[in-house]
Amino acid sequence: MEKIKRTERLVAITQFLMDQANQLIPLTILADRFGAAKSTISEDLVVLKEIFISTGQGGLETVYGAAGGVRYVPGISLGDAEEFLANLALRLSTKDRILPGGFLYMTDLLSSPTLLRSLGLIFAGAFRVRKPDVVVTIETKGIPLALATAEALGVPMVVVRHGNKVTEGPSVVINYLSGSSQRIQTMSLSRRSLAGRQRGVIIDDFLKAGGTVRGITNLMTEFGVEVVGMGVLMEASLDQGPKLVDKYLALLRLTELDYLSGKTTVTPNHLGLIANGGIE
Amino acid sequence: MEKIKRTERLVAITQFLMDQANQLIPLTILADRFGAAKSTISEDLVVLKEIFISTGQGGLETVYGAAGGVRYVPGISLGDAEEFLANLALRLSTKDRILPGGFLYMTDLLSSPTLLRSLGLIFAGAFRVRKPDVVVTIETKGIPLALATAEALGVPMVVVRHGNKVTEGPSVVINYLSGSSQRIQTMSLSRRSLAGRQRGVIIDDFLKAGGTVRGITNLMTEFGVEVVGMGVLMEASLDQGPKLVDKYLALLRLTELDYLSGKTTVTPNHLGLIANGGIE
Repeated sequence: MEKIKRTERLVAITQFLMDQANQLIPLTILADRFGAAKSTISEDLVVLKEIFISTGQGGLETVYGAAGGVRYVPGISLGDAEEFLANLALRLSTKDRILPGGFLYMTDLLSSPTLLRSLGLIFAGAFRVRKPDVVVTIETKGIPLALATAEALGVPMVVVRHGNKVTEGPSVVINYLSGSSQRIQTMSLSRRSLAGRQRGVIIDDFLKAGGTVRGITNLMTEFGVEVVGMGVLMEASLDQGPKLVDKYLALLRLTELDYLSGKTTVTPNHLGLIANGGIE
Repeated sequence: MEKIKRTERLVAITQFLMDQANQLIPLTILADRFGAAKSTISEDLVVLKEIFISTGQGGLETVYGAAGGVRYVPGISLGDAEEFLANLALRLSTKDRILPGGFLYMTDLLSSPTLLRSLGLIFAGAFRVRKPDVVVTIETKGIPLALATAEALGVPMVVVRHGNKVTEGPSVVINYLSGSSQRIQTMSLSRRSLAGRQRGVIIDDFLKAGGTVRGITNLMTEFGVEVVGMGVLMEASLDQGPKLVDKYLALLRLTELDYLSGKTTVTPNHLGLIANGGIE
């Protein structure tokens, strides 16, 4: 790209950095790509940083030194996040979403990239301070949510499989007690999938008794991965018995589920609690 | 946000539109949010459109009329796409990626949000002209790729399940012949998951004989969904027999797989072929 005017360059840099969100881009790359001196790019980045602070929707992180550069960290403002969750709760508080076993039909919402993006940004906002280097989930329904969170955090995602999949090479297999059905089940994870990862955030769509999330936690111990956060889209607050996990962040809460009328009530949890969402 | 200078507004609008990629944003929303007249916003959008044309990495689409607005359509330039696939092919042409059954271990790459984003943009670039309104895949390994494609296209994703999941409500179940193992298998999809969808793109990670993709195609027929494109990350060109599907877009090709030495060779397909990638 030939030398361009400042406004155009600022917009083009914004697009370039957002396209490669969470990746550290050396200033020389920007200087080459946009035909400007490194000092000019530095000044541009100062301007952009200010603008992003005023929008509150993400920001620039500068890393100094020889291996330095700049990265765009995507974000969502607290106001937008709360409005989003309130709307989502309303959309879930409708008729005919009850599934056998006391689950809620959410697949339609969990297949929308737009909704997933916002959910990922909210989870990332809660867990970024704990510096996770991987997001872990279990197949199948948790995957889109986990991927959106991993994307917002800029770390890879790992998917635990049900049963023991021989096609993934040597695996670690554990048995766990499903909290709600009280059945012994099996989950497995390929040995090589977590090589070099040390701090994991567990993400799942629904938390009932917590047996599955607890199983994943035990599996992480086998890999030497410390669980630094757990997030679920929705918790059921209807069950009697205690949960099998205690420190987790649920964005929504299922407070009413009337089989007879088909009516459900979902309420958003307060995002002020987000700071307490991880593991101490 | 109070009234701000033009450069800052252009950057903030870019961030706002990219944050809500593929969504149609009415001009009044932008005018309210950025404290400017609609005519001013219109002029801003003309400037932004020009800049994005020059970067080649995505663009603005304007819809006129009362229900109109503007949407940011993410994209990747042909040059960046080809460079990306060449690098990916190199990373896959290494030792010790062979899995039982002649598959290739790609899970590490398919769990990186950065790689997935580029792959989604490449598939979206190939299939957008066919105006799909849903991306369809089958659990488990195709999901991240399908979600990235759905995100780039701005449409929802639907996940076909193996076997028959009773917890998803009334479902359509079909049997299909797995092309490589020659076994009868079952796949199912909840009736409500495709309500109102008519044009689908099928995305999967690996195509060997094509039995699974063919099964999904048959399932789509039951839902009245026309398959307007099929994309796979990699095809195996090693099998003897003919493929069970003929019109599909494979980004990479597995051309050599030596069990003895553990060596594999993967080559990128030419993106010039992309225009022929869909179904006629």
